[in-house]
Amino acid sequence: MAIIYLDNAATTQVDERVLKKMLPFFTEKFANPATKWTSSISKEVDIYVEQARVDVASLIEADPDEIFFTSGGTESDNTALKGVALANCENGNEIISTKIEHEAIIKPLETLEKMGFIIKFINVDKYGFVEPGEIKNLVSKKTILISIMHANNEIGTIEPIEEIGEIAKENKIYFHTDAVQTVGHIPINVKQLNIDLLSLSAHKFYGPKGVGAIYIRKGTKIDPFMEGGGQEEGIRSGTLNTTGIIGLGEAAKIAKKEMDFDDKKVKNIRNSLWKKIQEQIPGIFLNGAEMDKRLSGNLNFLVKGIRNEPLLVALNERDIIVGGGSACSAGSKEPSHVLKTIGINAEDLFSGIRMTIGKFNREEEIDITVENLKDYIKKLRELSPSWKEG
Amino acid sequence: MAIIYLDNAATTQVDERVLKKMLPFFTEKFANPATKWTSSISKEVDIYVEQARVDVASLIEADPDEIFFTSGGTESDNTALKGVALANCENGNEIISTKIEHEAIIKPLETLEKMGFIIKFINVDKYGFVEPGEIKNLVSKKTILISIMHANNEIGTIEPIEEIGEIAKENKIYFHTDAVQTVGHIPINVKQLNIDLLSLSAHKFYGPKGVGAIYIRKGTKIDPFMEGGGQEEGIRSGTLNTTGIIGLGEAAKIAKKEMDFDDKKVKNIRNSLWKKIQEQIPGIFLNGAEMDKRLSGNLNFLVKGIRNEPLLVALNERDIIVGGGSACSAGSKEPSHVLKTIGINAEDLFSGIRMTIGKFNREEEIDITVENLKDYIKKLRELSPSWKEG
Repeated sequence: MAIIYLDNAATTQVDERVLKKMLPFFTEKFANPATKWTSSISKEVDIYVEQARVDVASLIEADPDEIFFTSGGTESDNTALKGVALANCENGNEIISTKIEHEAIIKPLETLEKMGFIIKFINVDKYGFVEPGEIKNLVSKKTILISIMHANNEIGTIEPIEEIGEIAKENKIYFHTDAVQTVGHIPINVKQLNIDLLSLSAHKFYGPKGVGAIYIRKGTKIDPFMEGGGQEEGIRSGTLNTTGIIGLGEAAKIAKKEMDFDDKKVKNIRNSLWKKIQEQIPGIFLNGAEMDKRLSGNLNFLVKGIRNEPLLVALNERDIIVGGGSACSAGSKEPSHVLKTIGINAEDLFSGIRMTIGKFNREEEIDITVENLKDYIKKLRELSPSWKEG
Repeated sequence: MAIIYLDNAATTQVDERVLKKMLPFFTEKFANPATKWTSSISKEVDIYVEQARVDVASLIEADPDEIFFTSGGTESDNTALKGVALANCENGNEIISTKIEHEAIIKPLETLEKMGFIIKFINVDKYGFVEPGEIKNLVSKKTILISIMHANNEIGTIEPIEEIGEIAKENKIYFHTDAVQTVGHIPINVKQLNIDLLSLSAHKFYGPKGVGAIYIRKGTKIDPFMEGGGQEEGIRSGTLNTTGIIGLGEAAKIAKKEMDFDDKKVKNIRNSLWKKIQEQIPGIFLNGAEMDKRLSGNLNFLVKGIRNEPLLVALNERDIIVGGGSACSAGSKEPSHVLKTIGINAEDLFSGIRMTIGKFNREEEIDITVENLKDYIKKLRELSPSWKEG
């Protein structure tokens, strides 16, 4: 039986077209673009790298010289936070963020806090929404940066970043958004949204792992995070990951053309899956925002009365791959900080299931998934009957 | 005509066996190993990642749990320097290094200096050798780290790191070596050499770009550089670049088996090339150490009376790719800091040529190279006859 992969928020399958585009740059056009001035094969590689920059820029309506390639979302987040904080500490030491950010935001913020920065965390409501008014209340003359994710990786809630961008702009504060879950899936216009810095990662939209980018609006004052040979205008040193970058560019180009179509398909599958789960399985409660205010591929729900781990393992035995939280916290004994923050009761914190649909999923996979889910939930509830229907 | 690629210190062609090993992990075994506890396809990917860790460890005689995957040499260097400095600043604030390090060492050291650390740079002699006695003189109770490269990327000089390691050990100071140019080319035993931290990069030994590793001896006190989801035991966060890591592992496995053979072949070609250059072209002077005390593939020489850039461009027109310094400084208008440090006269600083042989070079390429080199040097010297033979 083929695998049913419903963990597309953790990572996605590389699109065959992306891989095809990357292949010549491993063994044939393998030169280092840094020597483009004196080597024609380096120059040729450089042309592809620069085309990738154009394609990534185009996907978020940025200028190509505002795109800097990194090793992925985590590096982009570290660069944005530490780079802006350290470069602007003479103007202030306050940063505003939320408690439902990815660990790649939370951990650097904790480090900045130890260095003397003040991190103000705003609340989110029970759906995971930030209230922009709260940001207004927390802004001070010392605020140098607001970092708020575009959409949450666990519960899929899409934040009102346009309003946040406006507040940042009015107050002349840099605005960074971790858009790892949205780039390539929903249209983004960094100019219109008043975004100064944005993190993205290739492997979340059918590109390769180990490569991402950071958009930095022209004129932004930022220190480099990865220091060395001065590549990427000194913003990000290190030999360019040419194959990865060219793969990212191709993934961006495909997404630009096809994301509307893919998004509709993904949403239909997700909606149909959710409808069937609700119809067939009792004691299921949605985590996060309503269907039209969350990522099209995202479902996150509580299964009352069971722990998620045995359920994930059981589904896996039937080749159905689903998640229990974020990929990064899977296997961790800590409960999800996102579910905790949106107010899920302690008894339910280990009962969350995340199913994330991608463009390679098919409608036919739903019935098998729901059938198995129903079956195993029933069995697990019988084993430890703490929960009774009705 | 096929390209004659003599810039293997800048980057190398990926070995076909490495690419073959990587391929299934793009489109088929694409899962995120972070979810290995609940997903069998993640578990399968994880097994390959862990095998890569074993293969990389074996190449430098480390334990697998002392290997942490990064995005490359630059990240490994940033991690080693900033990570050790910040974690040990209560014990002292002095770091010892050299002025011929790669920029990925120099730049982070400059940043640490701004933060209050004191960087003591030791001299090198005219061949680029560090004198270990000088290190002894500079060591104080405040010294927390010694960082000295294993071999220089421009002039190929191999440093006496065993003696340096002993000094570090005697004085209980951490010893880091940037071994980006040597790993996979010459045998390294981190235990025997008393190395506490070592940086390596896959694309310097026939692996893919965008991936590397840092060896951190067990018990070393170090802060993470890339912070986030806690992958790699919290030392290096970010979704694992599975394809890159598996490629690095395969490159390490191949190197372990074949580097002795390849090294002999590379050395023979390099020696034969140097012999012919000396026999046929006047006014050529070697930069760096004697042939048996430098990297087997490295040649770096001054061509009196010409600037290197037009020569590189001319050779490139004949599909012969050589370097003028390090890949990172190519295209830069700054002279090589390495040539400057070893005492090359100002008038000769732009006359350096670097030819670096790799395992895919063939003996037949030498005569064509020497012939063209001779021809163009003659023409360029005629154009600006500042240099006269004899």
